[in-house]
Amino acid sequence: MSPPKLEFRIPGWLEAASPDPDRAFHGPEERMTVAVELARRNVRRETGGPFGAAVFDRDRGTLVAAGVNLVVRERCSVLHAEMVALMLAQRSLESHDLAAPGLPECELVTSAEPCAMCFGAVPWSGVTRLVCGARSSDARQVGFDEGEKPSDWTTALERRGVEVLRDVRRNEARSVLRAYAEGGGPIYNSRRGTSDGG
Amino acid sequence: MSPPKLEFRIPGWLEAASPDPDRAFHGPEERMTVAVELARRNVRRETGGPFGAAVFDRDRGTLVAAGVNLVVRERCSVLHAEMVALMLAQRSLESHDLAAPGLPECELVTSAEPCAMCFGAVPWSGVTRLVCGARSSDARQVGFDEGEKPSDWTTALERRGVEVLRDVRRNEARSVLRAYAEGGGPIYNSRRGTSDGG
Repeated sequence: MSPPKLEFRIPGWLEAASPDPDRAFHGPEERMTVAVELARRNVRRETGGPFGAAVFDRDRGTLVAAGVNLVVRERCSVLHAEMVALMLAQRSLESHDLAAPGLPECELVTSAEPCAMCFGAVPWSGVTRLVCGARSSDARQVGFDEGEKPSDWTTALERRGVEVLRDVRRNEARSVLRAYAEGGGPIYNSRRGTSDGG
Repeated sequence: MSPPKLEFRIPGWLEAASPDPDRAFHGPEERMTVAVELARRNVRRETGGPFGAAVFDRDRGTLVAAGVNLVVRERCSVLHAEMVALMLAQRSLESHDLAAPGLPECELVTSAEPCAMCFGAVPWSGVTRLVCGARSSDARQVGFDEGEKPSDWTTALERRGVEVLRDVRRNEARSVLRAYAEGGGPIYNSRRGTSDGG
């Protein structure tokens, strides 16, 4: 039934496009440009939807892992940009818990606010800050579905020790979503009149 | 930065223990015994926490994919039993959407109610029914954290076309959680006084 490995291909361009691991990105705005550029490239390279995310070392500002939406390409509804970035960061730091002793404090920077699944994944990951670009409402406006988050989702994360920053380079992040929709990019799972954001 | 593959090992016993793909399990109760047995074996084989899940063909009753919690073993906080079962089912049926035309209607049977992440993942997966054993409160009672779901999470799923059945063999499912806790099984992420269920 279940073959012995679950395996997903990471696009070659993602590795090539990832910044030098020694390069520091100072502050949320600069780090958001990385996430938004990932979203833009994912569309241009036709590897997935207009969503990018990255895990950064909060103090040093260096990139730990970069992710993009790979749902359709890898035939896996779990592979939203945030999930890919978190899974790659955990592999890179060799822990299921990015807040484990000895590891650098990590943050997740995402080109669009997390959907219900990615929201739920954040506390389990060990990141201590979530930095968001476009709003869920921006994603919804172009046809993506964000699922059902608690109405106070940012407070819920803060209560769990995850700081939340919103609207970081929101216009720039939103423009990638709009360009995708205007370009006729597929909005999948559309039989439900909706589709998966992230 | 990002190596070209994201790869997770599925325990060999999971494959060996999975029922014959032609065997039919009739009704939710019979299918739940499979999920609960997976949870039990995952503990006994020391491959992860006391959580099991399986995707079934709703009409035929055959197993599509089986999953267990592999978070610590595979160093990945995403790998709750439900997520593993869904990812393996999508790979097996070669689609990110288990409700795609031509595929059998699928349901997710889980030994414990989904945490916030797995709840959010259900609508994206394409399953049309969620069958739950133990309650989230049962998991919390032994120290697992379920995250923050909308208070009306079952209604939220039903609104999206996912039928929800609860308390299916709840006592049996709960007993696996209790035995694990009483046996001193690690409840990880306990620095937050809590840990990830699923």
